[in-house]
Amino acid sequence: MITNTRSDRVKQVRALGRRSAREKAGLFLVEGRQAVRELIRFAPETIRDLYLDAEATERHPDLREMTLSWQRDAEPDERRFVHDCSAQVLAEMCDTEQPQGIIAVARPVDRALEEVLAGSPKFVVVLTNVRDPGNAGTVIRGADATGADAVIVSDSSVDIYNPKVVRSTVGSLWHLPICRGAAIEDIFARCRDAGLTLHAADGVGTTLLPDVELSTPHAWVMGNEAWGLEPEVREACDDVVRVPIYGAAESLNLAMAATVCLYASAGAQH
Amino acid sequence: MITNTRSDRVKQVRALGRRSAREKAGLFLVEGRQAVRELIRFAPETIRDLYLDAEATERHPDLREMTLSWQRDAEPDERRFVHDCSAQVLAEMCDTEQPQGIIAVARPVDRALEEVLAGSPKFVVVLTNVRDPGNAGTVIRGADATGADAVIVSDSSVDIYNPKVVRSTVGSLWHLPICRGAAIEDIFARCRDAGLTLHAADGVGTTLLPDVELSTPHAWVMGNEAWGLEPEVREACDDVVRVPIYGAAESLNLAMAATVCLYASAGAQH
Repeated sequence: MITNTRSDRVKQVRALGRRSAREKAGLFLVEGRQAVRELIRFAPETIRDLYLDAEATERHPDLREMTLSWQRDAEPDERRFVHDCSAQVLAEMCDTEQPQGIIAVARPVDRALEEVLAGSPKFVVVLTNVRDPGNAGTVIRGADATGADAVIVSDSSVDIYNPKVVRSTVGSLWHLPICRGAAIEDIFARCRDAGLTLHAADGVGTTLLPDVELSTPHAWVMGNEAWGLEPEVREACDDVVRVPIYGAAESLNLAMAATVCLYASAGAQH
Repeated sequence: MITNTRSDRVKQVRALGRRSAREKAGLFLVEGRQAVRELIRFAPETIRDLYLDAEATERHPDLREMTLSWQRDAEPDERRFVHDCSAQVLAEMCDTEQPQGIIAVARPVDRALEEVLAGSPKFVVVLTNVRDPGNAGTVIRGADATGADAVIVSDSSVDIYNPKVVRSTVGSLWHLPICRGAAIEDIFARCRDAGLTLHAADGVGTTLLPDVELSTPHAWVMGNEAWGLEPEVREACDDVVRVPIYGAAESLNLAMAATVCLYASAGAQH
């Protein structure tokens, strides 16, 4: 049972809230029941450690069940340890104020650009210059919900392993192929090679969403939550699409606009 | 120029972050450029005070422009004063960490249930037991964007004048009729009188969104962001509709689901 909130281990886990520490360690932090459950279901081999609030397991028996399922899943020569902690230790390790009794330390799951675009994708999502973690995570969740084939996050965007992004994906991070860190020029070139039409989504667009052909393979290109896409990025796309506004609202936020565009793609393809 | 961060005025404005103080004063706080701009455009007569960060006006000339337009708009016998403040005073009055140089204190704009349902509405949004301010505000913004005729927020939901709700509506609070504080039974009875079909939106629904008839008048009924709608509320509706999930995501968040449902309504009606 880990009870010392000042131990090196606690400090090392807590440091994973910072991008530099994540990149140095090649690890990131996963907080909360729903996210950890999906991690155990979809990528159990990427988990290095599970930390469990021993008291919380009395109120939430599913927590112990989850960790046991992960341990049962081990290869014959592999040993998987779950660390019981005090609530204080768990809180100290976390980015969030409510760690919900369990956190994991896991290895990245992103894949190379060629890999996420292999296999004739029908539609994918490209994020560029997205800085807000909640918006980025919600778009990944929306891509998952609509059955998108991949999410590609450019090098100018928030780190997908930022704890706030991880939380707001609610597990979608492990549900579909994700690429990060590529330059937007390379992303566009590879999308073209994969036969995808590039639709920029931006409130300044002149093409309305209901008029876009979405039954053929395509990529949605989404930009910064405050200022949208840069002119040169819009120009590199095949069209600039806007979600129609029927009332007096000036705009939608990024997560809303992305969800509407992605459901239009799903509707056209299913 | 107001510079004393401990004055009674500063304390009274700051207190509007609390529901009890808002109800006692009959006033609420509006923070940020976009929200204040929309307030001035759509409901200038409800503004009691505008507080301006005198230094911020040098960086953002649109702030002074906004306040001047409000003053020009006054009735002949009405006098409208703008209070210049120090940045510290503005920060002290605010709920947010970035007040963006301007805040307003304004009177409520909600209307009676009969009033928001008058005039043969085509579709409206009913929120019940919604507790998260960001979700509530985003749904109001989505209702505005899709041209909904009204938003009705039941008495069991977050206060629409909570500063976080006001911020996340980004001005939509003044763009369409909003009713608050009615009991869900009364809301449903009045919606029936207005000829609206009641569609409950919930992940447990058996009717898929693309199969719902949305060209006839209807109300979308949306529930709590964590546990959805109560069984008795679902049963009081004509059907329970779920947004299809094509991937491995377990669900959408309330704001995403509402946006998709509302755009389906707008698409069917425009």
